[in-house]
Amino acid sequence: MEINDTQENINEELLIQTANEGNLDSFREEFLDLHPYDQAQFFFKIDKEIRLKMYYYLSPKEVADFFEMLEIEDEEYKDILAEMEPKYAAEMLANMYADNAVDLLNKLGKDQTASYLTIMDKDAAQEIKGLLHYEEYTAGSIMTTEYVAISQNQTVRSAMYILKKQAPTAETIYYVYVIDEDLRLAGVLSLRDLIITDDDTMISDIMSDRVVSISVGDDQEEAARQMRDYDLLALPVVDFQNHLLGIITVDDIIDVIDEEASDDYSKLAGISDLDKMDKSPFTAAKKRLPWLIILLFLGMFTASLIGRFEDTLSQVPIVAVFIPLIAGMAGNAGTQSLAVAVRGLATGEMDESGKFKIILKEAGTGIVTGAICGILVSLVIFIWKHDLILGLLVGFSIFASLLVATIGGSLVPLFMHKLKIDPAVASGPFITTMNDITSILIYFGLATMLMSYLIQ
Amino acid sequence: MEINDTQENINEELLIQTANEGNLDSFREEFLDLHPYDQAQFFFKIDKEIRLKMYYYLSPKEVADFFEMLEIEDEEYKDILAEMEPKYAAEMLANMYADNAVDLLNKLGKDQTASYLTIMDKDAAQEIKGLLHYEEYTAGSIMTTEYVAISQNQTVRSAMYILKKQAPTAETIYYVYVIDEDLRLAGVLSLRDLIITDDDTMISDIMSDRVVSISVGDDQEEAARQMRDYDLLALPVVDFQNHLLGIITVDDIIDVIDEEASDDYSKLAGISDLDKMDKSPFTAAKKRLPWLIILLFLGMFTASLIGRFEDTLSQVPIVAVFIPLIAGMAGNAGTQSLAVAVRGLATGEMDESGKFKIILKEAGTGIVTGAICGILVSLVIFIWKHDLILGLLVGFSIFASLLVATIGGSLVPLFMHKLKIDPAVASGPFITTMNDITSILIYFGLATMLMSYLIQ
Repeated sequence: MEINDTQENINEELLIQTANEGNLDSFREEFLDLHPYDQAQFFFKIDKEIRLKMYYYLSPKEVADFFEMLEIEDEEYKDILAEMEPKYAAEMLANMYADNAVDLLNKLGKDQTASYLTIMDKDAAQEIKGLLHYEEYTAGSIMTTEYVAISQNQTVRSAMYILKKQAPTAETIYYVYVIDEDLRLAGVLSLRDLIITDDDTMISDIMSDRVVSISVGDDQEEAARQMRDYDLLALPVVDFQNHLLGIITVDDIIDVIDEEASDDYSKLAGISDLDKMDKSPFTAAKKRLPWLIILLFLGMFTASLIGRFEDTLSQVPIVAVFIPLIAGMAGNAGTQSLAVAVRGLATGEMDESGKFKIILKEAGTGIVTGAICGILVSLVIFIWKHDLILGLLVGFSIFASLLVATIGGSLVPLFMHKLKIDPAVASGPFITTMNDITSILIYFGLATMLMSYLIQ
Repeated sequence: MEINDTQENINEELLIQTANEGNLDSFREEFLDLHPYDQAQFFFKIDKEIRLKMYYYLSPKEVADFFEMLEIEDEEYKDILAEMEPKYAAEMLANMYADNAVDLLNKLGKDQTASYLTIMDKDAAQEIKGLLHYEEYTAGSIMTTEYVAISQNQTVRSAMYILKKQAPTAETIYYVYVIDEDLRLAGVLSLRDLIITDDDTMISDIMSDRVVSISVGDDQEEAARQMRDYDLLALPVVDFQNHLLGIITVDDIIDVIDEEASDDYSKLAGISDLDKMDKSPFTAAKKRLPWLIILLFLGMFTASLIGRFEDTLSQVPIVAVFIPLIAGMAGNAGTQSLAVAVRGLATGEMDESGKFKIILKEAGTGIVTGAICGILVSLVIFIWKHDLILGLLVGFSIFASLLVATIGGSLVPLFMHKLKIDPAVASGPFITTMNDITSILIYFGLATMLMSYLIQ
C-alpha cells in the first residue's frame, strides 16, 4: 500500500518562495526543521536554480546530513555534485558518515574521487581512503569506522564520558565495543547496559565477551543474516586476527536485504536492475532485450529440435496440441525447485552438508507431483479424446518432465553455489527454456516410438 | 555465502553432559552466557528429555528471553508449549515482549490462548489482550506496547530517571516519545539527544515535534517503507486521533521486509510458503501441487484451443515447431512487466496517479522489444527455412504477442492493486499461462489466414 505521507510534511511552496525571495533565515528555519529524508526529497525535486541558492544558504555539513538519504541514479549524483563548487562538495563528503561517502565516491570516476580527496580535510580523506579499497558486496564495503570503542579497565562513569564526547560523530552510540591493548575486539555492551548500571562498576564486569562479529571479506548477505538472526542494531567487522575494523549499522543492512531480495526477484523474472524505475520505453527495453534475445535463440534451438520430428508431426498432428501444456508444466516445476534452492541458499537454511539430501528430496517431490499430474492428465485426455495411448503418452511425458525439471531446478543453483557463482544467476527464464528442451525431447521421443499406435 | 558461525559459539556436548548429570550450576553458567539466538538454536535442536530438564533449571523469564528468537513451524511451537506445565508456559508468555507473545498465541488455537490468559499474571494478560485483536499484516499486529513515554514539561534529568527505571522492560530505550495530557503523540527524542544535552534542559526545548508515525490499521509494508526511508530504529503507531498506541521496532521490520520479499518471490515462482524448508517430499509436494494442478487445467484449455486448429496443423505441420518459441517469449515478456509492476507497487515508486503513464510506457516497451525480436526472428527463419511467409508469420506473431503480454503483465497487477488485492497474487505462472493462450490464438489465427500461402 502506498501512501504519500512525505508530501504532508513538506511545505514546498513556502520553501521555494523564501528561497526565491532570498529570505535566508525563514528558509533555514523551515528547511532545517524537516527530517533529513524529507529534506532530500525536496532537494532532489526542485529546480537546479533553487539548489544553487541552497548551497549558499546551507553549510556543507547541513547538506551532508540529508545527502545521505538521497536515493537516485548514479548519473544524477554526478550531475548534482557537478553543480557544487569542488571545495564545497569535498567538505560535504568529509561531513558524511565515512561509509556513505565511500558509497557516493564509488559512483563517481576514479579521477573525480582522487580530486575530491586531495582538497578534503586530511583526517576525513584518510578515513575514506581506508574504506575505498574493500570489494563490493563484502562486509568491509558497507562498514563505517565511526564507532565507539573503549578499554575494559575503566568504570561505567568514564565510559559514559567517552560516549558523550563521541556521540555527535559516531554513527551509532547504542553499542559500545571493548578492545584490548592490541586493538582486538574483546567485548560488547549496549548503551542500555551502561545506563542501568551503577557508575562505579567496571566495564569488564558488565561487558559480554561472546561478541557476534563478521570477517571483513565476508559477503554482505552473511552480515544481514547474522544481524537478522541475532536482532542486532550494529555488527562489528574484524580482520583475521580479530582486530576491530569497523561496524555495520542496521539501516545499511535493511538496504542490503532489500537489494538482495530485489536482485533474486529480478533474476527469476529475467530482467536486470529492477529497482530503478525506467523513464522511457527505450531504457526499459534496453534492460529487457538481452534476456529476450537470448531466449529467442534458445527458442529457435527448441524449434529446430521439434523440426526433427516433422515426420511424427505430419502423421499425428494431434501431438502438437499438448506441446505448451508439457513445456509449461515442466517449466513451472523447474522454477519452483529453483526458487526453493535459491531462497534456501540465500537464507542459509540450506548448507553444504545437506546438498545430497536436498537433491534426493527434490527427486522425491518430482516423483510425487509428476505421478499425480501424470495420472490426472491421462485420465482427462482419455475421457476427452477417448484415446488411451495418447493419454498415457502425455501423462508419462509429464511425469518424466516434472521429475527431470525438479531435479534440474535444484541441481543447477547448488552447482553454481559450489562454483561460487551467485545461484540466482540461474534465472527463471533459463531454467524454463532448459526444461522446455528436455520435456519436448522426452515427449517427441516417446511420441515417435508410439507413432504406429497413435495413427488411427 | 553460508558460514555456520553459530556452531562455534555453542559447546553442545558440555551442555548436554551437565544437563544429564544434573549439574544445575554448570549448566546455567554455560547456557546463560550464550546469546539468546544461540540458546534458542540449542533448545530446539536437543532431545525432548533434555528440554524437560531445562524447564526445571531455568526460570520462565530465562526461557522467555530466548523463546522469542525461535524460528520454527507453528506445529512445532504447539508441541514445545505442550511439553511445559501450563502455569510455566503462561508465566513464560507473560515475560515475553507483548508483541512476540501475541505472535506466538496467534499460532495456537483460541481455546489454548484463552486458557493461558486465564492463569497468567493479570497485567501481562491485559497487555496481550489489547494487542490480540489487531488484524494480521497491519501496523497494529506487529507493534509492542513496551515503549518509553514522557511528558514535555520536565527536564532531561527527570527524563533520564524515568528511562533508567523503564529500561529493563521496554523493548527499546533508544527513542523516547513525548505525549501531551490527552496521551496524544507530541514529539520524539533519541537517547542520543538526551545524553548529549545538559541535565537541566527542558524536554520541550530539544524534542522534535515533526514525528514520523503510522496509523494502527495501515499495512505493515507501509511501516517498513517508512522505517527504511527515514532510517528509524522504531516507529510510533497512533490511532486516528493521534493517540500513541505502541511502537514498531526495527528487528520486527526486518522480518516483515524478509517475509514480504519472500512472498513476492514465491508467488512469481508459483509456490506457497517458501520460507520454511520442507522435511519430506510429501510436504514439499503439498505446497507445489495446487499451483501445478491449476496450471494443468489451464494447459488443457490451451491444448483444446490448439485442438480447434487441427486442420491448420495437419496441413502445415511446420507451424507446430514454433509453438514453444512464441509462447515462451510471450510468457517471459509478461513476467518481466509483472515483476516491474509488482516491485514498483511494493516499493511505492509506482503510484495511483502515474498508472496511465505506466501502461503507456509498458506498451511502448512492448512495441520496441516486439519489433526488434520480431524482425530478428523473421530474418533467422527466412535464412534457415527460405520461407518468407513463415518468417513473417512467426515474426509478426512474436511482435503482437510481446505487445499484448507486456501490457497485460502490467495491467493485471495494477488492476488488482486498484481492487485492494495484493498484486503479487497475479503470480508468474498465471501471467505465463494467460500469455500462452493469447499468443497461441494470435499465432494460429494468423497461420490459418495465411494457410494457402504456407502450403507449398
